[in-house]
Amino acid sequence: MNPIDNATETRLQRGQRALAEIDGEAGEAVVRSLADIAPDFATYLLEFPFGDIYSRPGLSLREREIATIGALCAMGTARPQLEVHIRAGLNVGLTREEIVEILMQMSVYAGFPAALNGLSAAKAVFAALDSENGPDEVGSAQDIS
Amino acid sequence: MNPIDNATETRLQRGQRALAEIDGEAGEAVVRSLADIAPDFATYLLEFPFGDIYSRPGLSLREREIATIGALCAMGTARPQLEVHIRAGLNVGLTREEIVEILMQMSVYAGFPAALNGLSAAKAVFAALDSENGPDEVGSAQDIS
Amino acid sequence: MNPIDNATETRLQRGQRALAEIDGEAGEAVVRSLADIAPDFATYLLEFPFGDIYSRPGLSLREREIATIGALCAMGTARPQLEVHIRAGLNVGLTREEIVEILMQMSVYAGFPAALNGLSAAKAVFAALDSENGPDEVGSAQDIS
Amino acid sequence: MNPIDNATETRLQRGQRALAEIDGEAGEAVVRSLADIAPDFATYLLEFPFGDIYSRPGLSLREREIATIGALCAMGTARPQLEVHIRAGLNVGLTREEIVEILMQMSVYAGFPAALNGLSAAKAVFAALDSENGPDEVGSAQDIS
Amino acid sequence: MNPIDNATETRLQRGQRALAEIDGEAGEAVVRSLADIAPDFATYLLEFPFGDIYSRPGLSLREREIATIGALCAMGTARPQLEVHIRAGLNVGLTREEIVEILMQMSVYAGFPAALNGLSAAKAVFAALDSENGPDEVGSAQDIS
Amino acid sequence: MNPIDNATETRLQRGQRALAEIDGEAGEAVVRSLADIAPDFATYLLEFPFGDIYSRPGLSLREREIATIGALCAMGTARPQLEVHIRAGLNVGLTREEIVEILMQMSVYAGFPAALNGLSAAKAVFAALDSENGPDEVGSAQDIS
Repeated sequence: MNPIDNATETRLQRGQRALAEIDGEAGEAVVRSLADIAPDFATYLLEFPFGDIYSRPGLSLREREIATIGALCAMGTARPQLEVHIRAGLNVGLTREEIVEILMQMSVYAGFPAALNGLSAAKAVFAALDSENGPDEVGSAQDIS
Repeated sequence: MNPIDNATETRLQRGQRALAEIDGEAGEAVVRSLADIAPDFATYLLEFPFGDIYSRPGLSLREREIATIGALCAMGTARPQLEVHIRAGLNVGLTREEIVEILMQMSVYAGFPAALNGLSAAKAVFAALDSENGPDEVGSAQDIS
Repeated sequence: MNPIDNATETRLQRGQRALAEIDGEAGEAVVRSLADIAPDFATYLLEFPFGDIYSRPGLSLREREIATIGALCAMGTARPQLEVHIRAGLNVGLTREEIVEILMQMSVYAGFPAALNGLSAAKAVFAALDSENGPDEVGSAQDIS
Repeated sequence: MNPIDNATETRLQRGQRALAEIDGEAGEAVVRSLADIAPDFATYLLEFPFGDIYSRPGLSLREREIATIGALCAMGTARPQLEVHIRAGLNVGLTREEIVEILMQMSVYAGFPAALNGLSAAKAVFAALDSENGPDEVGSAQDIS
Repeated sequence: MNPIDNATETRLQRGQRALAEIDGEAGEAVVRSLADIAPDFATYLLEFPFGDIYSRPGLSLREREIATIGALCAMGTARPQLEVHIRAGLNVGLTREEIVEILMQMSVYAGFPAALNGLSAAKAVFAALDSENGPDEVGSAQDIS
Repeated sequence: MNPIDNATETRLQRGQRALAEIDGEAGEAVVRSLADIAPDFATYLLEFPFGDIYSRPGLSLREREIATIGALCAMGTARPQLEVHIRAGLNVGLTREEIVEILMQMSVYAGFPAALNGLSAAKAVFAALDSENGPDEVGSAQDIS
């Protein structure tokens, strides 16, 4: 997975490209949902997390999603965002099994309820993907040999 | 990084081996500190997090530490454990720059104070390592070409 | 906005008056919901937060709601109460735009998920108010010139 | 309430027995829900919390549930688990009134929203029990003389 | 342990008596520390937590401290208050071993770091008590038959 | 207090100006502390929180600090940042008494320990200011008539 980098882009353009690559439709839905209440915040969301942070070369997107999925699961206050990032993890190369490993590991650091609720989020995302794609598509059991 | 696995070991033995590999002296100091107040808890700590979770094959130790460092930084309630796992991250193959990337990324999910306090923990660990080892040793700037 | 103060009232009476002024119907619904499970707790809720704290003269109610909306958004564990206090903020003089500013600002201190979830709460409250009142009433866009 | 102890059992067997005694059907539903996504985690859940911790003799199950209900209410990030443990508390000898006392007390340590949300969880559990059992059964008002 | 109750007292008097019984000198030090910065808050602290909540008859003080120690350990943001309540637990009849059990149990709900930091607080309190009293006094190993 | 706005500045310049106005020397010390470990993060800190958020016109700086002090006190995981923002609050027009009101109010939403620890932070900041300035300077009791 190549880090995202293009010196001639604006932060906003770079963020839009990164969001599309990482979060796909789920991320774009978040941006659209801000249009009528806080359009400037949609811009900040594209610029800082995606245009600045995710576009940095120091970690692969796969590694960045490992950290994010672990953190959101441990915090336990961000179910919608955890679901977006479970999808994002699949988009940037994590398998379902690897995501389950990350969530299970959080039982050590944030307790069993945090891990159980994270696994519940993963179950919901995996079921939605199977329903959207049929079970043979990206992120399904076939990815996991 | 090979996952830790040896079917003939007990959970406790496997946990002790994993703790030594991952956390080194810092982890053993935690276990020793429990001896007079909660010795059974030292056993649980070796058995469940290290003997069960970190010994699973589904993620590399490097990847597990990415998730743990992200989570502990985001939670903001576990400074001593974050310091132990910053050392552990270096032990299992993360560079200082990669750890700094993880901590910076947490500003997006848990806010700037969480990231700043995580970077403060990293700064303290890196300074302690330079003082212990001299700056040419494991985890120092020389690792990062 | 005058601070609430009347020396001859009991704490309970003062709290009831402050609750009615600040939270209106939404606050009274909370009190009613406690009647069959924890009636004493309804009394404490009226007496301490409303009779003691919100009735103090040191800050305006508008300023108190700025602090509360910021805190509940940042904590991320109190969605129902955040919605009550978004309504309360409108009742004591904050505009929708000012509430959105507070919620956006929390991205800095508690991360983007906390801010996004706070904005989602605001969106739900604003939509409910428009549905209850029609869009020309208290707290609607017309307040914000 | 006798602590759970049987030296010839495996941890898993002891955990299954403790789960059945403490959480009853609600706990077994949690274990079943893990079967298709993280079956190993169901094993860990039985072994460590129930086989190791709840089976220790140092506190009664009633006292352990007091600590757990207080903690889950205060954390505010574990509504499903709080509901399971409110049922568990009733199973191991707490009355509805005692559970309400614990939840009310959490207003002091974690704030009124945490207590209100805990009381809301209790209200949902009590209503479900009344619906399942009729109001004359275990944990209903009749238990409280 | 009799619940605290005396209908002719004011809430403040009842709170002062409860604080003295439960927290002893450590609680009075908290109250004194507020004198120059927020004297009204010292009054609220005596009135609501101690005069209202801890004085209720529905749970014993020993049971209330089980809930509080569990909650403060799990929250992980209240080290000074956790230390005060570990002392308070010993004052109202918990043994050191029972307190260690509560703290260990929190590893299940809030993770190993929360439990480890709670045990560290207990170790500090027990050492301070041994230093103040000599090891034969209240709360020492001799209490635990 | 005029909002900060100057269309010809870069985000970084605007952030530096806002940081100097709001946080003064304490903010600049945070930026300097990042120079050797994460210099890019110092840039992000100036650009996003200060260049983007605090420079928006929708709330006064005084109101923004009310929200931030409330949030940091309630979160309980950001003592160093809470101290910086208590100083910042004084810089942008809050009195010591108003800051104490905000912190006391957080007992309602985040519990008494959060409020007590916030008041402890305020006490430390006020004492440091009195030591730096003598008691007649900005933010001292003389401000509060």
